[in-house]
Amino acid sequence: MSARLNIYGDAISGNCLKVKWTADLLGLQYDWIETSVLEAETRTPEFLAMNPAGQVPTVVLADGAVLAQSNAIILYLNKVHSGGLLPQEPYAQGKVFEWLFWEQYSHETAIAVRRFHKHYLKKSDAEIDPKLMEKGAAALTLMENALKDGAYLVGEKLTLADISLVAYTRLAHEGGFDLEPYPAIRRWIARVERDLGLQPAQTPERAA
Amino acid sequence: MSARLNIYGDAISGNCLKVKWTADLLGLQYDWIETSVLEAETRTPEFLAMNPAGQVPTVVLADGAVLAQSNAIILYLNKVHSGGLLPQEPYAQGKVFEWLFWEQYSHETAIAVRRFHKHYLKKSDAEIDPKLMEKGAAALTLMENALKDGAYLVGEKLTLADISLVAYTRLAHEGGFDLEPYPAIRRWIARVERDLGLQPAQTPERAA
Repeated sequence: MSARLNIYGDAISGNCLKVKWTADLLGLQYDWIETSVLEAETRTPEFLAMNPAGQVPTVVLADGAVLAQSNAIILYLNKVHSGGLLPQEPYAQGKVFEWLFWEQYSHETAIAVRRFHKHYLKKSDAEIDPKLMEKGAAALTLMENALKDGAYLVGEKLTLADISLVAYTRLAHEGGFDLEPYPAIRRWIARVERDLGLQPAQTPERAA
Repeated sequence: MSARLNIYGDAISGNCLKVKWTADLLGLQYDWIETSVLEAETRTPEFLAMNPAGQVPTVVLADGAVLAQSNAIILYLNKVHSGGLLPQEPYAQGKVFEWLFWEQYSHETAIAVRRFHKHYLKKSDAEIDPKLMEKGAAALTLMENALKDGAYLVGEKLTLADISLVAYTRLAHEGGFDLEPYPAIRRWIARVERDLGLQPAQTPERAA
């Protein structure tokens, strides 16, 4: 472990990529310690001693202090490095927080969880709780309506809300969610991917 | 609707009580509009027009702007009214955020959800997903270990993390979670209830 930011993350996890993208946008130097969820590397005694919740992402700061929870980490990094990814105006800031909590409660729990079952655990549709599809579709509909009026989720520039929400939304097809009925979401994904310097996830390879 | 803070909440919901307690601590004037989840008052066309997620708490500010998600609302109220419930030091602030996101992902989804099934929907233990008990016990163990070393979750005074986490932890028995094996949690609940001016939830009436 070096005396700079250490990010323990799994590259297949949108939650972990949020932290990578935010660190990259802020121009931070860090070490990425690949930590496989599927191989239970987050459940070893060593990992649990660092983060008893046994989850990635987990970061270890230069002074050894540990911080977990993807959205807490990106808020922290943005604050410490004076990023402009969280509006200072209280109501706009409140709306970013609203999206971040909604993401963890109502979006990740359907879109990311269904992707995990389908794409990584290779379950058939019949083996996956049908409520996940229903809940995910409701989440996408809410986002589509919110994005009809603006380029970003809050205000007219990229915020942590976009970084957080795009992580699993851009991979929704891997969970069996077709984004074709959601044109505002697709435009927003392309915009945020451009801002983050990412290759498009919704490409022809999707049909391959 | 008056031109001051309107809180749409259900008094049986810990998520809603977080907002009430924070508003009370900050000395705010507000109207509480009781909105029953069980009677689907959060699913009316009028309510969905205000908050398309169909959830309480939802607040309408004096200027008509709407904000949802319990933890986002308490962060907003604390910021606007210069409350001292969120540390300014970045790492301590990050830890409060970590607890707030963990609460919504790993605690509320077990402790509050099991309470809802058992206490309000009156399901028998056999009808409730057994994973909820397991997940809730893991959450309580994590809190117990965190509270062994300190009076509060972050630092030596009350923060939004305590307000958020105490909401359902103090009612855990209604979900079938016995707090007897968690002495540090019980001491912390008593302390936070005192700070918030609440009657103890874990009283002899529990056995009645």
